Amino acid sequence: MAATSTAERLRSLVRPTTFIQSDLLNERVGAKVVLASETFQRTGSFKFRAAFNIAQNTPNNTLIAASSGNFGQALAYACKLLGKKCYIVMPDNSAGVKIEAVRGYGGNVVLVEVAKKPRAQAVRELSEQHPEASVVSAFDDPHVIAGNATLGEELAANAKLFDAVIVPVGGGGLLSGVITGMSEKGCKKPIFGAEPLLANDAARSLKAGQIVRNESEPQTIADGVRTLGLGEHNWKIIKDGVAGIIEVPEEKIKHSARLLFNVANLKIEPTGALSLAAVLTDPTKFKDQTVCCIVSGGNVDQSILFDLLTEY
Amino acid sequence: MAATSTAERLRSLVRPTTFIQSDLLNERVGAKVVLASETFQRTGSFKFRAAFNIAQNTPNNTLIAASSGNFGQALAYACKLLGKKCYIVMPDNSAGVKIEAVRGYGGNVVLVEVAKKPRAQAVRELSEQHPEASVVSAFDDPHVIAGNATLGEELAANAKLFDAVIVPVGGGGLLSGVITGMSEKGCKKPIFGAEPLLANDAARSLKAGQIVRNESEPQTIADGVRTLGLGEHNWKIIKDGVAGIIEVPEEKIKHSARLLFNVANLKIEPTGALSLAAVLTDPTKFKDQTVCCIVSGGNVDQSILFDLLTEY
Repeated sequence: MAATSTAERLRSLVRPTTFIQSDLLNERVGAKVVLASETFQRTGSFKFRAAFNIAQNTPNNTLIAASSGNFGQALAYACKLLGKKCYIVMPDNSAGVKIEAVRGYGGNVVLVEVAKKPRAQAVRELSEQHPEASVVSAFDDPHVIAGNATLGEELAANAKLFDAVIVPVGGGGLLSGVITGMSEKGCKKPIFGAEPLLANDAARSLKAGQIVRNESEPQTIADGVRTLGLGEHNWKIIKDGVAGIIEVPEEKIKHSARLLFNVANLKIEPTGALSLAAVLTDPTKFKDQTVCCIVSGGNVDQSILFDLLTEY
Repeated sequence: MAATSTAERLRSLVRPTTFIQSDLLNERVGAKVVLASETFQRTGSFKFRAAFNIAQNTPNNTLIAASSGNFGQALAYACKLLGKKCYIVMPDNSAGVKIEAVRGYGGNVVLVEVAKKPRAQAVRELSEQHPEASVVSAFDDPHVIAGNATLGEELAANAKLFDAVIVPVGGGGLLSGVITGMSEKGCKKPIFGAEPLLANDAARSLKAGQIVRNESEPQTIADGVRTLGLGEHNWKIIKDGVAGIIEVPEEKIKHSARLLFNVANLKIEPTGALSLAAVLTDPTKFKDQTVCCIVSGGNVDQSILFDLLTEY
């Protein structure tokens, strides 16, 4: 009963994804694309789905999480809605707009100089200072997967719009959630992951048949997927559920961001451009198909976006 | 029968408006707002609704129109879909992205130095060169009103979301269309116009009880409403159908644009920010209400948007 009621509470709070189509975008990309934009989700990214679900299912009233930004905002807002307290450990080179947003939602930001101290260590130290708190994972937890599965359910309900789905991959929380949600609704359309070539641990993991990790945080422009490796829970779902991982060069991420902004009128963060970038990287893969590209978020520093759009 | 089939054809082509809500935006504005965004409409603004309808209802195979941009793009695309030809007369200071877009959709752009030659004269001369062509109005024609009425119908169908509607006003084609569409569906919620204080001819017309015109094209940042006055057809509907016109200072348009971009993740053109700017201008008017702000379009030169967002 409790499980049902929390699931219903989550579904009642999540904003439905926004489907966007543009003939001019299709023409420029050379493929038919349906964007599923999470940029208008609560807190501006899909992360609210996972964050609210983990926050409502964790008994503690204080939560601690490491996040490069979007999960932090989402968890701060989820905790605000639930009357809980949270500490968000962020790298000190995070986008300024993301740090401010976490604070704006009432979260406590703890900045870490990642070059000197691993984030995991900072989280451990914080946890010792706050024994009443529970440390929650931004991407590797069954509640994260279940939260993100709500997007998979929405995609399944709109499956007539597309032949395949592309999902950005960092820790794999969104990809495993989409696989789970679509599968639970009986939708068998192929689901691909898109990750930066600079951070291609998911593609290498798939080839190796086990989780392969990056040695350090990859410095891709897609700051939302600067993760060391796939989560254990996510890997179990991804290894058999994904149709393939497309490795995307940085310049395709930039090209995709420009098309989304200038042609589709969509304000995106670089990570949000990953899925369309995968189509640009491997267009023949989706020949004569309609591809649903999940645009994961839109929270970006003005200066970063401007640089991205004007750099040629 | 023909009227029904063209109306159905229009409705089948128009993309539904995108409703967007943001708690953080509400907090910053100090009012509850529902955005009805036409930025993801075909050609990136509401103008497609009017342009397709007038193009399909005009017997000639060549059309001529004067447009500061969005109507030009929309008409060019409508003509492309209908296999017709069009000439778009544009001021030579139009946003570069709009000129390119008209050409991209297959339209023929005729640039006019507005300081030296009135656009009306340029249209007349072009019309003499092309006697086979029909000159169509971007904002003052029953087919324009009927096209834009499709947005009013959509708002009426979603009237549970809001207590009042705010519509940007230039020539009044959108406002008269929204009034018509909502009224046809029996929706009696109040509809306000929002116009720049620098171009407040609609407010002055309402006070005077007759159309009052600007002496020259007002140089408001909202380039989509740099019109001399309301259209005759539109005025007949607006004078009794509008609940009021809110006159918006330029700085409120800029403030609104920044909020829409940074807080609501919405890429907008300055004219698209007018309706939310009206709430910022007169917040007590909508106290304890939920206001639907129509965001009319998102086509903007990168440089204009960047200047707008970084200027303080």
